[in-house]
Amino acid sequence: MDVPIYIYIALIAGVVSIIAAIYFRNLVMKADPGNERMQEVSGYIDSGARTFIKVQYKVLFIFVFVIAAALLFLPSPLENSERMFVFLNWEQSLVYIIGSIASMWAGYLGMQVGVKANTRSAQGCTIGTKEGFNVAFLGGCVMGLAVVGVALIGVSLVYMIFLSPFVVLGFSFGASSVALFMKCGGGIYTKTADVGADLVGKAEYDLPEDDPRNPATIADNVGDNVGDIAGMGSDLFDSYVASIVASMILATALIVGESLPIFIILPIILCGIGLFASLAGIFIIKWFGSEEPGKALNSGTYLATLLFAGLGFVIIYMMTLDYPRFAIRLWRVYLATVIGLLSGIIIGFTSDYYTRDDKKPTRSIAEAAEEGHAVVILSGFSYGLISVVPPAIGLVIAMTIAYILDGVFGVGMAAVGMLAIVGTIVANDAYGPIVDNARGIAEQGDLGDEVIRTADRLDSAGNTAKAITKGFAIGAANLTVVALMFSFAEEAGTEFIDLISIEVLIGAFIGVIAPALFSALLVQSVQRNAGKMVREIRRQFEENPKILTGEEAADFNKCIAIATRGALRELVFPSIISIIIPLAVGALFGVAALGAFLAGAILSGFVFAIFMSNSGGSWDNAKKFIEDGNLGGKGTDAHKASITGDTVGDPFKDTAGPSINTLLVVMSLTATIFMGFLLAFNHGAGLLSVFL
Amino acid sequence: MDVPIYIYIALIAGVVSIIAAIYFRNLVMKADPGNERMQEVSGYIDSGARTFIKVQYKVLFIFVFVIAAALLFLPSPLENSERMFVFLNWEQSLVYIIGSIASMWAGYLGMQVGVKANTRSAQGCTIGTKEGFNVAFLGGCVMGLAVVGVALIGVSLVYMIFLSPFVVLGFSFGASSVALFMKCGGGIYTKTADVGADLVGKAEYDLPEDDPRNPATIADNVGDNVGDIAGMGSDLFDSYVASIVASMILATALIVGESLPIFIILPIILCGIGLFASLAGIFIIKWFGSEEPGKALNSGTYLATLLFAGLGFVIIYMMTLDYPRFAIRLWRVYLATVIGLLSGIIIGFTSDYYTRDDKKPTRSIAEAAEEGHAVVILSGFSYGLISVVPPAIGLVIAMTIAYILDGVFGVGMAAVGMLAIVGTIVANDAYGPIVDNARGIAEQGDLGDEVIRTADRLDSAGNTAKAITKGFAIGAANLTVVALMFSFAEEAGTEFIDLISIEVLIGAFIGVIAPALFSALLVQSVQRNAGKMVREIRRQFEENPKILTGEEAADFNKCIAIATRGALRELVFPSIISIIIPLAVGALFGVAALGAFLAGAILSGFVFAIFMSNSGGSWDNAKKFIEDGNLGGKGTDAHKASITGDTVGDPFKDTAGPSINTLLVVMSLTATIFMGFLLAFNHGAGLLSVFL
Repeated sequence: MDVPIYIYIALIAGVVSIIAAIYFRNLVMKADPGNERMQEVSGYIDSGARTFIKVQYKVLFIFVFVIAAALLFLPSPLENSERMFVFLNWEQSLVYIIGSIASMWAGYLGMQVGVKANTRSAQGCTIGTKEGFNVAFLGGCVMGLAVVGVALIGVSLVYMIFLSPFVVLGFSFGASSVALFMKCGGGIYTKTADVGADLVGKAEYDLPEDDPRNPATIADNVGDNVGDIAGMGSDLFDSYVASIVASMILATALIVGESLPIFIILPIILCGIGLFASLAGIFIIKWFGSEEPGKALNSGTYLATLLFAGLGFVIIYMMTLDYPRFAIRLWRVYLATVIGLLSGIIIGFTSDYYTRDDKKPTRSIAEAAEEGHAVVILSGFSYGLISVVPPAIGLVIAMTIAYILDGVFGVGMAAVGMLAIVGTIVANDAYGPIVDNARGIAEQGDLGDEVIRTADRLDSAGNTAKAITKGFAIGAANLTVVALMFSFAEEAGTEFIDLISIEVLIGAFIGVIAPALFSALLVQSVQRNAGKMVREIRRQFEENPKILTGEEAADFNKCIAIATRGALRELVFPSIISIIIPLAVGALFGVAALGAFLAGAILSGFVFAIFMSNSGGSWDNAKKFIEDGNLGGKGTDAHKASITGDTVGDPFKDTAGPSINTLLVVMSLTATIFMGFLLAFNHGAGLLSVFL
Repeated sequence: MDVPIYIYIALIAGVVSIIAAIYFRNLVMKADPGNERMQEVSGYIDSGARTFIKVQYKVLFIFVFVIAAALLFLPSPLENSERMFVFLNWEQSLVYIIGSIASMWAGYLGMQVGVKANTRSAQGCTIGTKEGFNVAFLGGCVMGLAVVGVALIGVSLVYMIFLSPFVVLGFSFGASSVALFMKCGGGIYTKTADVGADLVGKAEYDLPEDDPRNPATIADNVGDNVGDIAGMGSDLFDSYVASIVASMILATALIVGESLPIFIILPIILCGIGLFASLAGIFIIKWFGSEEPGKALNSGTYLATLLFAGLGFVIIYMMTLDYPRFAIRLWRVYLATVIGLLSGIIIGFTSDYYTRDDKKPTRSIAEAAEEGHAVVILSGFSYGLISVVPPAIGLVIAMTIAYILDGVFGVGMAAVGMLAIVGTIVANDAYGPIVDNARGIAEQGDLGDEVIRTADRLDSAGNTAKAITKGFAIGAANLTVVALMFSFAEEAGTEFIDLISIEVLIGAFIGVIAPALFSALLVQSVQRNAGKMVREIRRQFEENPKILTGEEAADFNKCIAIATRGALRELVFPSIISIIIPLAVGALFGVAALGAFLAGAILSGFVFAIFMSNSGGSWDNAKKFIEDGNLGGKGTDAHKASITGDTVGDPFKDTAGPSINTLLVVMSLTATIFMGFLLAFNHGAGLLSVFL
């Protein structure tokens, strides 16, 4: 089967994007890194982040090695089938390793620039908003472009070489393994430091945010980088590749005859177009710059969306000239991707509504803080759950329309569309922690109130962007795992997954519980680690009172070590269960039950992910609203209660909530990739099928 | 078709149980009601509870009338089918009204005795633990026996007259409508008062629990009666009847030929046996009395279980003599019911483990309180979610074994088994609020520290019993709705509910979200109402300082009015959506999607119900653990943080969590009973099926 020439769109887009990333990196490095103290702080953050990544990657290498070996020696999913693609397992195993290394490399590159951009953005703020914004934005773009460029080049090349979506699946699984570690580990790290710093520094000693006397301040800043830049980047790398591969598998299963070669690479082509759209959007924003960072970020998203729709239209039109017989189907699939992208943006903006402090929900939560700690929790809890409804409706409508347009393949392509402009999304998202850090560095580098206020303005735009991208990421991941579930079912050859049969119902039951258990374990990890951090901070303050007077420096390395070690230790159990549980369900109850397990996990995962992200986001903003002087401002009982809300929300929104995405992708890919293994148990009916 | 004579076991059991209830009622009324002040307080509680019930029942009558009319005029579920039972809709409509009145009457009777038993139990405590316990226990038994007696007589008579399980379905739906109102309304009422009283009285004015100066104290005591006695009673009435009717429908669908008459009434027979077992257990406990209330309540449960297994064995043996050809199946079904009951008890005891202050989870939560408000919340939140796993495993094992024993009918009968000794369960549960009230009356009636300590001991046994019965009730309701879902599917004639089709997946998605939304709305209702209560209590204290000095009485009627009005207003929206959403899903996406909706709702409902009940229970006990003098005791920061946990947990464990049961039953019954209506939309494929 020849690969249509259109695939080069994706390859070229990937290469251009890597070049642009390197160009932006150089621009960032050329900017003024500020005074000595700032460089010192930035250096600490840099080395803390490197230490974490190094330790993390070491463990990851072992994990990847074990899984690669398992892939090599386990029965191949397709050995005994008569599908069109048959391959030896070494290919999937090798590509798995390549996928994980690619993801690690992209994450490392992006984060490396992030930790350089922070101090330079802080210095930029001494000139003006525009200058501060530009550096941070470019730093974010490096991450966004590196992630998408590497992913797209990887997927295209793997497909061009092996000509099998199932080998690409290996690449995707590699990216997923990395994402699981980076997201859980980074999430635990960042909140261990943040919660610990707040509980002692803010609550007990009344230190301001980012105060250099607080021993956990540097660890907190490191956490923003490893959790929010590297973690979120690897998460979206993962979803991005998974959405492509899910659609490719669906194409091979559903589309027969001579139209297959073009439809099988359509996800790759459209992602290439999306990458060009993201690039164009980024250059336009960079060109015009902006005094209003929030607007600039949003207009980048809008621009990329419009350009995607326009460029996509042109390319699809060209393709219809080459393949007139498939014209109608090409247009339908194109519409499905546009619908997917639009719904992603709508979902993102509902998250924004529920977390903005000028809208009713967050305002009510802030007011609830006046009635005490318990009421602010109840209020955030209920709004968080209610906020699940609008994005769910958005997702249901998108799925329905996409299904009407081109069946299950349409649903897969809607996921591709949602993730097509992921370059912009990751860039906006990585901007957040950079300016967050910049604010901290401005504070620690004594740049004065005016500059801190400018940095605050940048930070607040980052928070809004983060809320939107988080909603977006959850929506996209969910649509992707729905596509993965369909491709799993196609792959398993199950004609239907019947909910009325007991093993399927049990599979769905376990699936519904899995995300709840997973988030509980992560929240508990953060709580346990933060407890250690709290004790360490208290110890330092008590043993050396000069730290509090500012005469002597706090020992922030101890705090970094606690966060690093804790994050690694705590991520082991959740990571293992995310692979063990689907395998156990499949082996015991059969592949139909495993399909239902995935469905249950996807649906309940959506609820928990949105609930936790949004409740956490609005508690955070309710606190900021009060700190801005509303409802009595800082120091009041309402403020204290709002801090309680924020602290509860921290592991919700930055650890557990966003990790659920990765969990879902890993579980879906595990199910698909270990199919051959599962089919060994009573031909896929499961060990217990003799009784049931 | 003749009804086998064995059905009289159930009728006789029902009648005996009503007689026993009246006898116990007289025993309670004969006991010494204590001093004037105690009688006064008890009188206030009594009249507050009556007021609420009256207003509540007025609204209920309108609701019941509307639904009865809808049942009468909507297309009958079976008009166009060729099933064996065809009937005119007036029968279902009439029986629906009877079912709702029966449930209202049982609830009213039980609650009426409850509000008399409280002061008498307090007076009993002046003599000794045993005396205080006896009155409260008998008071609880009146509720338990009234509920089960009325339900069993109702179901048996309706079936004997109309010979159709589908008419019995109407009875069940009537009971469900009442339960929905009583559970949601009562739950909102009780927590409005409790949270309001705590937030101002305890937190702002340092008043002890149940202090007569607190204007919301009486409303709080009323709440215990309407929420925990009448509400829980109607909830279990509802589950009980639903489990019977689900198995009856499954029998008509799955069992053909001459064995049908005996198997169709088997659920009724076994419930009759269970009622005899409960009665015997109650009499034994009453006979021997006990100095250790906790042990007495638990041994009642064990005794009833053993007696059920033994009596059941005897009756089934007799039946095998009469019907030797069905002997094996009879034994298999008997085993399924025993498995169901055993798993119910195991589920109950895991709830106990997660909420007891001498076990690790609650102990950890109490210790987390030392680190502040946020940490205690995070700790309770994560343990609450983790506590879902053991009962889920219990339920999965029970379902699997029951399925192996007799397929889907076996699962239905396991639910019947779990609910067979519900008389004991309701009795134990109603005991809790009676002694809770008794403690309050002892405090307000100035009976002295010694008596209050005795009442505390009774109260603490009540809390443990409540944790167990709550877990039990959730497990039983879930197994029942699983059976209802199967019977819905049989009824709909859907051969399978295929999760790979988009409309089914969407149905499941909406189902998973429904319990989350429902609990959020209830929590929000409590929060909103409690806010009003807080303002009223503050107003009274500020306008009349003599209330705080005890010179003048607080105006508790205002507080009662706020709780009553608020509960009624707030329950309307959740009640309506619990009926509208399933109808909308069925009409738009078809009956298969509605089946998946039910499955999704059941699974996520289980997670939310257990999570909310257990987290709430352990926050409560963590607070009590600290109040008992541990970790610094009352007045410390840890104590304050533990109060925050308790206040958050209040609407979780007493409003939202337990209401989910009722929601699930109502939604399942709505789906089944409005089947004819739903089949009118593209023959059950749904309005949107033209596109999908």
